[in-house]
Amino acid sequence: MDVVRIGIIGIGNMGSGHMKSIMAGDIDGMVMGAVADVNPARLKWAEENYPTVPRFDNATAMMDSGLVDAVIVATPHYQHPELIKEALGKGLHALSEKPAGVYTKAVRELIEYVKTQDKTYAIMFNQRTNCVYRKMKEIIDSGEMGKIRRTNWLITDWYRPQSYYDSGAWRATWGGEGGGVLLNQCPHNLDLWQWICGMPSKITAFTHNGKWHDIEVEDDVTAYVEYPNGATGVFITSTGDAPGTNRLEVTLDGGKLVCDGKKLTMYKLSEFVDDFSAHWKGGFGAPECTEIEVETDGENPQHAGVLRAFAAHLIKGTPLTAEGAEGINGLMISNAMHLSSWTGETVTLPIDEDKFLAELNKRRATSRLKTGDSVTLDTEGTY
Amino acid sequence: MDVVRIGIIGIGNMGSGHMKSIMAGDIDGMVMGAVADVNPARLKWAEENYPTVPRFDNATAMMDSGLVDAVIVATPHYQHPELIKEALGKGLHALSEKPAGVYTKAVRELIEYVKTQDKTYAIMFNQRTNCVYRKMKEIIDSGEMGKIRRTNWLITDWYRPQSYYDSGAWRATWGGEGGGVLLNQCPHNLDLWQWICGMPSKITAFTHNGKWHDIEVEDDVTAYVEYPNGATGVFITSTGDAPGTNRLEVTLDGGKLVCDGKKLTMYKLSEFVDDFSAHWKGGFGAPECTEIEVETDGENPQHAGVLRAFAAHLIKGTPLTAEGAEGINGLMISNAMHLSSWTGETVTLPIDEDKFLAELNKRRATSRLKTGDSVTLDTEGTY
Repeated sequence: MDVVRIGIIGIGNMGSGHMKSIMAGDIDGMVMGAVADVNPARLKWAEENYPTVPRFDNATAMMDSGLVDAVIVATPHYQHPELIKEALGKGLHALSEKPAGVYTKAVRELIEYVKTQDKTYAIMFNQRTNCVYRKMKEIIDSGEMGKIRRTNWLITDWYRPQSYYDSGAWRATWGGEGGGVLLNQCPHNLDLWQWICGMPSKITAFTHNGKWHDIEVEDDVTAYVEYPNGATGVFITSTGDAPGTNRLEVTLDGGKLVCDGKKLTMYKLSEFVDDFSAHWKGGFGAPECTEIEVETDGENPQHAGVLRAFAAHLIKGTPLTAEGAEGINGLMISNAMHLSSWTGETVTLPIDEDKFLAELNKRRATSRLKTGDSVTLDTEGTY
Repeated sequence: MDVVRIGIIGIGNMGSGHMKSIMAGDIDGMVMGAVADVNPARLKWAEENYPTVPRFDNATAMMDSGLVDAVIVATPHYQHPELIKEALGKGLHALSEKPAGVYTKAVRELIEYVKTQDKTYAIMFNQRTNCVYRKMKEIIDSGEMGKIRRTNWLITDWYRPQSYYDSGAWRATWGGEGGGVLLNQCPHNLDLWQWICGMPSKITAFTHNGKWHDIEVEDDVTAYVEYPNGATGVFITSTGDAPGTNRLEVTLDGGKLVCDGKKLTMYKLSEFVDDFSAHWKGGFGAPECTEIEVETDGENPQHAGVLRAFAAHLIKGTPLTAEGAEGINGLMISNAMHLSSWTGETVTLPIDEDKFLAELNKRRATSRLKTGDSVTLDTEGTY
């Protein structure tokens, strides 16, 4: 393949953004093959703005058209696994918007299916392209700072006003989206958290539904986790705080790393803290500590980076930004947070997937239908 | 009274520090009347360094001597309430080192007793003298930023090496100290937290015993709280992290306040966030935010400030830094954190004090006795 003809399924907020950047020629090795959307208003938008791109009113017809080599699935979350499976089954490669799905059981079944065929399944974890998070992972993986002792992510800078939630009938409903801030805003953070720090083994969480908005799903979450090595962690998020905070701190044997998404600061000890404790007889005192603003490569290509890597992978076999199968990890944490809060219990990972789905389905069964027209928002700079 | 003749009960780490500053003439209106300690080594230290100050080998004899108008109780924690009560009963004023006690039941009984007589009961909450915390309280109390939505205190800069715990036989034992980081290092923070943000109504906590040190009590704590108005909060502390972090963030309707104990930063919104949400139709967007480094009076007199205020109160009737009775609040939070972790349940405040004491007594009954000589440490700059 010399160039990937992409088909975008769902040209709402995210899908239309991808279409714009591909049509602008920003994605080496990728051209628009076609788009599909069930919403006539969105097809009209495509016709008006990009009249040369073929349009379909359903994904299957587009996948069968022969016009596309690969698809981007940018539909409401529940449909991600089934559409990915359909695309792979038709011999197409597929890139899923986040989250991988709404419940791990569906994603696990998809992952099993992926193993039976040879097409590429990728996921839009665009924040993995951010130089500061990449560098943080590199430092921790290198072992130079020892093992992790504590993680702490205060990620409350996802503020959304009520009009955001009113912009789509599926938004922020159990039936349409399957959750709130954990499913919509935080898949990036939950993925980065596990990518950089590893998977927790136990989660106790407190999710609050409609705390800051007129919605039925959670817009405020505090979670406490424990890792297999005994380390602990906290994850706090909300769409109700302004200006909010993005502060990820990881404490290790050799000091700590603090990242606000733009800058990475290292506090490096002269020796590992347990080594110091073993020999220091002074009662008070601590290892010497040096504060370092960590240099990175400065690259942060975000969605364009993921799309370029996807195209290059299909053309040249170079690595993806994230394999689709990795999407189950952050979703597992998200599902565990919900399940813990719903049951009032600490949840051990991997979760009981049937129990989670049964609890989710209870909420879907009584999900409130929203009325009114959907509005497509410009997401520039919001993710 | 023109000058307060103070008697210090317990001249270990803290008591000897107070003695030094009083003998250096740093405390207006206060002179050393006498000292009492059950440890001959400490009396020898006093004799060698301050031979003119009368010494007693027990507190009662000193209180009965007529040489003191007021006492500072700087003994192991369990003894605080009983010694305060004895002093007040003998017509002396009393200043308690923190914590007010080990369990709220004892402190509540003391508070009831205090109401029956007219002597002063104060407590050493020296961090209340810090200009940044005073300013933070002033801003929140003024209401200019609306109601609190979230509190978050990452207070892990209490690092202690093993030699600290090995320095005293009573230290870090259920029998001697009644707890670890919550009872020894955090009384200041728990008091400031409730002083600035108010008392929580529900607490779920995870305390880890001897996680970073060879001790039987907790040296690592994560707690989630809910306030009566629905706000939530997190408190994380440890003596195992180096360099650790001190970062108190309070989110309010009108923005947020962030304090590291030295600097106070305000993020002030152009309008309250819920007002913005009610009228903003843009989907994305947030109120404008201005970052301000808040000016304070720069004063931070710490222990000397508390001692001066105590003397001035007795001489001139001016306000104390903290009434002794206020000490029960931080201790209630501490007890609730322990109780939640011990029972694996969320604890509602006020706690069941008998249940807490029964649980504490179980741990005291099997408390490990430590052997070896106690060492007195120079606490300069450690609190």
